Parts: sequence; C-alpha cells; structure tokens
Amino acid sequence: MNLLLLREEDFRPDGTARLDGRRLLHAREVLRAAEGDVLRVGKIGGNIGTGEVLALDESRLVLRCSLNESPPARPGVDLLLAIPRPKALRRVLPAAASLGVDRIVLINAARVEKSYFDSQVLAQSEDLLILGLEQARDTRLPEVMVRERFRPFVEDELEATFPHGARLLAHPPAAHAAPDLAGRAVLAIGPEGGWVPFEIQLLEQHGFTPFSLGPRSLRVEVALPYALGAISRSRINP
Amino acid sequence: MNLLLLREEDFRPDGTARLDGRRLLHAREVLRAAEGDVLRVGKIGGNIGTGEVLALDESRLVLRCSLNESPPARPGVDLLLAIPRPKALRRVLPAAASLGVDRIVLINAARVEKSYFDSQVLAQSEDLLILGLEQARDTRLPEVMVRERFRPFVEDELEATFPHGARLLAHPPAAHAAPDLAGRAVLAIGPEGGWVPFEIQLLEQHGFTPFSLGPRSLRVEVALPYALGAISRSRINP
Repeated sequence: MNLLLLREEDFRPDGTARLDGRRLLHAREVLRAAEGDVLRVGKIGGNIGTGEVLALDESRLVLRCSLNESPPARPGVDLLLAIPRPKALRRVLPAAASLGVDRIVLINAARVEKSYFDSQVLAQSEDLLILGLEQARDTRLPEVMVRERFRPFVEDELEATFPHGARLLAHPPAAHAAPDLAGRAVLAIGPEGGWVPFEIQLLEQHGFTPFSLGPRSLRVEVALPYALGAISRSRINP
Repeated sequence: MNLLLLREEDFRPDGTARLDGRRLLHAREVLRAAEGDVLRVGKIGGNIGTGEVLALDESRLVLRCSLNESPPARPGVDLLLAIPRPKALRRVLPAAASLGVDRIVLINAARVEKSYFDSQVLAQSEDLLILGLEQARDTRLPEVMVRERFRPFVEDELEATFPHGARLLAHPPAAHAAPDLAGRAVLAIGPEGGWVPFEIQLLEQHGFTPFSLGPRSLRVEVALPYALGAISRSRINP
C-alpha cells in the first residue's frame, strides 16, 4: 500500500477524514504512524496528496488531508479480456489497476469455463482494483463490465464501449509484433487456450488487428503486463 | 502445464520415458490421457516434440518420445533482480522462465530485507522455473545465481556474468522510456522501494543506462513482464 485511499464517506463535515479497518491497521502496523506524521493519501476518483495524522488509536485514524496533486498519467488502454480462472483474475485485477487501465470488459469465450462467471472473485473486484491503485498511487477505479455472451457484446455493445482508438488482438500466430501506439487502444487478450477462429474473425470484422506477443504461451497475469509494455513504449515517456 | 518436461533420468535404455509424481497426475487428471494418445513433451535442455502413451496406470506413465522441434526462441534477456519478498519471488521465477529469461541474479539491495535470502522459496526455485517452462513450452532452465552482497557482485562478478549486450536499469525518475533493443540485454530491476542513489551510481558506473517504466510504482511481478514487453518489441517478431 503506497497510499491510503479515501472515499467520499470517510470525510467529515470539518474536512478531516476518519479511517478504520484495513487502512487503520496498515497505518498502525506497517507505517507505524504516530500523531503528527504525514502520510501519502488519495481520494478515489480525485487527487493525491498528504494526510497529517491528527489522531490514531485502536479504533480510528483521523487525517487532515491536502489533496493538491494529480494522480499519475494513465496510458489510455482498455481491455477486452476473456475472463480468466478465478485464481488468475485475483491477480489480474490489481495488476490492471496498477497499470492504469481505464475499462475492463470480462467476456466469455469458447475456451472459458462457464463457472468462472460464478466466481466469488468477481464480487471482490472493487477491493482488488483498490489494491492495485494503492500500489501505483492512483485514484481512478477502472470500470469493470462482465459479459457472459461474446457475440452479442461484440456486435451490439463494442462500438459504444470502445468508441475511440486502435483495436488490438493478442494472437500468437499473428504476423506482426506489437505496434507502438501513442493514442488510445483497446487490447483483446484471449483465454489461455487462445481465441477460437470464429472469435478472431468476429473481432477482426470489428476492427481488431491481430498482433503477436511471440511464440510463448504465457499465463494471463504475465501476458497482460507484457502486452501493455509492448504497446506502451511511446506512452511512458515521463 | 502445456508440455510434460522430461529429464535425462526419466529415459530408459530402450528409449522410452517413464514418469511418475506430478507429471503422472497431470496426464491422468488434467489431460485424461489414455494409451495411444499423443502428448506434448520436451526434454530439459533439449528439444520439444510428442510422446505417445504406451502405458498409463496409477503408478507410471510410459511414453515413446519423438523430440524433433526446437523450443521457442528466447529473447536474449538476463535479469539483475533485487531479491523480492518470498511471495513475489514465487510468482516471479515461473514468470521469468515463461518469458525465456536466460540468467537471473537475485541480489541484495539497501531496501531488501535480509530475511528474503533465507526464504524456502529459493530452495524450490528449480521447481518454480519448471512451472514456467511447462507454461511456455520451453525446455531451457534459466540459471539462477543468489548474491547476498551487492557491491562485490557488481564490482567483481558482473563483467563475467553479463559479458555481452546492453545494460538497462529500470528507474522511475529516469528521463527516457525503454529503448527498443534487438541484441542481448541485462535488465536491472530494483526492490519495490527502488534502488538507493549509491546503487544507481554504481550500476551506472558499470554501464547500466537508466530508463523509466513510467510514473507508476508496480509490483515486481507486474514490473518484470511489463519491462520485458517494453524492451522486447523488436525481439518478438515471429
């Protein structure tokens, strides 16, 4: 946790913020904070800055916050992600949030097990995304959409969901390496067994260009940051 | 597990291979293999190919192997990695192996906890690397070196350990984004708190060029594939 993330409801009428639970525990046990210390804080959807510890005991942490800095720039990437097995999803959501992904559509695919949509991990997705934001000192929660039907999403919702930017499809047999993009991009990443031909075809019909991440079959939690690194070189100039 | 990895000692004088343990379990329970099936196999340090199931029961799997294909091309990358906390190391080792890293030096740094060198995970590193090879259908085990002293390694061993290629240092405040490299590269990745100035200075004196992965603080298991993606675009042309 590289910053304490505050929500609207943590703020009291006098402008101070009062935290308990996991964030209180972190301030006490990891940061070993004491009255007068200044902690890094951010407000979900807003700025980052500092919080001076006004009070800290077993039941609450009270901070006077000064939120004057913008969160880190985002790379302008959305994901169309075949929903991974729950154990992988638990790692992918914080990773995607830490990388500054804006929108994540978790979609069905032929090689996805239907049971993945019943996973408890989906109900915890906001908590998992917050872990990623805390890691990267970001405040903006990625939007997560869950779609249990592939074709209706691509045919009816894709245009409105991803109206701008390049559309890229990670597909090992593709002839080209990742392009180096400066503008917005939607990145489609298939299940670990790959997209089936019908899915590739439908995505291509809807403007997705296949590219290869190389001959290696990667776990989705590795493939996702690898792919974002590969298309993001021109975005990450500080 | 996308291929069954065989060791020299699995082969019998008649050229067939006999497997038990985890690989037998995988063949029975995940692949649901039966006599006559053809499985994907590879030999550690050698080729990949197919294995025809000659016999399969509760105690052993016997395969007649044909190992005629080369494993996937490797990107030509070595890592100088501040040893991560054990939980992260457990993920980083398979990830690095799946990405085809050749050599991994796990090194001390000022912001590394000494106890990380006592982790049980280090004793399991070969098993963890094998998981990554099985994922990527590779056969060549990365070499892992563990060095508990930073400066002696950099001053006395670095030249011989990494004699060829570009030397790159992931460092958030650096002025340049990742270069796009075609030749060999050594990538230095610091602890989650970052390298301290002395470490940066010593690495720069030894030919490492700092580059930035952007303003976000990433977990090492995310930073590693992200960085490899960022420097590997020109390597991954199929």
